[in-house]
Amino acid sequence: MTHKKEPGRQADYPFRVAIQTRWSDNDMFGHVNNVLYQRFFEHVVVAFLRGPCAIDLMNSPVITFAAESHCRFLRPLSYPAGIIAGIRIDHMGRTSARYGLALFEEGCDEAAAEGHWIHVFVDRASQRPTPIPDDVRAVFERHRRIS
Amino acid sequence: MTHKKEPGRQADYPFRVAIQTRWSDNDMFGHVNNVLYQRFFEHVVVAFLRGPCAIDLMNSPVITFAAESHCRFLRPLSYPAGIIAGIRIDHMGRTSARYGLALFEEGCDEAAAEGHWIHVFVDRASQRPTPIPDDVRAVFERHRRIS
Amino acid sequence: MTHKKEPGRQADYPFRVAIQTRWSDNDMFGHVNNVLYQRFFEHVVVAFLRGPCAIDLMNSPVITFAAESHCRFLRPLSYPAGIIAGIRIDHMGRTSARYGLALFEEGCDEAAAEGHWIHVFVDRASQRPTPIPDDVRAVFERHRRIS
Amino acid sequence: MTHKKEPGRQADYPFRVAIQTRWSDNDMFGHVNNVLYQRFFEHVVVAFLRGPCAIDLMNSPVITFAAESHCRFLRPLSYPAGIIAGIRIDHMGRTSARYGLALFEEGCDEAAAEGHWIHVFVDRASQRPTPIPDDVRAVFERHRRIS
Repeated sequence: MTHKKEPGRQADYPFRVAIQTRWSDNDMFGHVNNVLYQRFFEHVVVAFLRGPCAIDLMNSPVITFAAESHCRFLRPLSYPAGIIAGIRIDHMGRTSARYGLALFEEGCDEAAAEGHWIHVFVDRASQRPTPIPDDVRAVFERHRRIS
Repeated sequence: MTHKKEPGRQADYPFRVAIQTRWSDNDMFGHVNNVLYQRFFEHVVVAFLRGPCAIDLMNSPVITFAAESHCRFLRPLSYPAGIIAGIRIDHMGRTSARYGLALFEEGCDEAAAEGHWIHVFVDRASQRPTPIPDDVRAVFERHRRIS
Repeated sequence: MTHKKEPGRQADYPFRVAIQTRWSDNDMFGHVNNVLYQRFFEHVVVAFLRGPCAIDLMNSPVITFAAESHCRFLRPLSYPAGIIAGIRIDHMGRTSARYGLALFEEGCDEAAAEGHWIHVFVDRASQRPTPIPDDVRAVFERHRRIS
Repeated sequence: MTHKKEPGRQADYPFRVAIQTRWSDNDMFGHVNNVLYQRFFEHVVVAFLRGPCAIDLMNSPVITFAAESHCRFLRPLSYPAGIIAGIRIDHMGRTSARYGLALFEEGCDEAAAEGHWIHVFVDRASQRPTPIPDDVRAVFERHRRIS
């Protein structure tokens, strides 16, 4: 017997940002193109790294490389509706972390999409994996998935 | 003991198209932005559906909805290098199929990225899942993953 | 003797919308890519046509075709700064109109870019130019350039 | 009396490149979105600067800033048709140049769009205008508009 996972709720994602859609986010089918879902995931990931994690992506000694991305599409999104994007930390290793990600239509508490990204932390100069900095770990810890 | 999966080869993907990169595909890190990998996956999926599968996405009675997308990033790609994108059928159900997808830097036989998309076949009018048409099934059958 | 035109002010553009930038709007030079300026012009044009002009772009009998676009770049914009985009009617003919357009960095009253678009109004069915509908003309009239 | 300018021909643009369209270049109206025309102009400008002009945009001491862009839309373009983009030098000053630009549907000798970009040459370090380097001037000279 299989069962469908329940769609996530906004409260499952402790850091959330509002995203404005653009007319051109819709594709010929009249909905937000599914590639754009990754663009919106990028938006909340960057907002989280720049904001709470205080990482300066263009200058900090440690940067992040995407190792994996995933998205399940649950219900269509369409311009001009606003979007809420949320992130939580699903898993944290020594040099990498897995972010749980979700998109919600503004005013709707059932996820329109859920997915994840895996980021590897990399030394900017050597481009080699490096431990997640302690201050970032502390922020990640506070944004852990609530199981 | 864990072991890393070997990166795919071009021959693992029976239908392949060349993709031209654009200067703007690179992001501030100087490599193709990882969201664009999904754009390139879209390119080969659409080329496969329009070409061998002869589906007219804007007019055919049966259309496709993305249910899931996934990508593992193995090595960076950068404009101006050309890209080869490949597709194969990993799994075929009654109303949905899972495409195995890969990107290669032109002239390189080791995948720079591998992933998959799941497409659900949907009746254009009712927007409800519908069996994969027989002629499409036949094409999918000929592009099955070689295990 | 030549003289530089003074940059426009927000008050020169009676209809204005706030635009959220995305990390990916910046290009390899670290500023908003200049192609995106046209994307932002599109954003305010569509907001103006959908909002005050009450045109349903996907269903109304009359639609608009772009005949011309122009942009002068005055100062760089960069994510994560917000943008204010403004529109005014510079000229109105029988079947076409010229919109004056400008972008401002949020909190700044000197235009970062100014330009224009010319839209031709077209019958959706015949795709032939058609007079600007009276209700749209009335809205255009109220958003005329103040000389 | 006014008269319409004749659309340009491919031979009017001495440096030309082929551009591959992407499914997502089309917008909800089913044609290449007019913002993308500027993307295609960018493609041929970058190809011209990188190729014949041998400018390394990311490392050379002199870089280019866009000062102005313009486009007249003459006929629609649509994925999957290929595009030919052409460039010529319309005007050359001490520190800036105006490129004449055009897009053609592959196999068609009448321009689908014509426009121009003005580029200012800038010292990478000081970000101040700087004379167009002599070797670039020589290439520009050979790609002058034929009147």
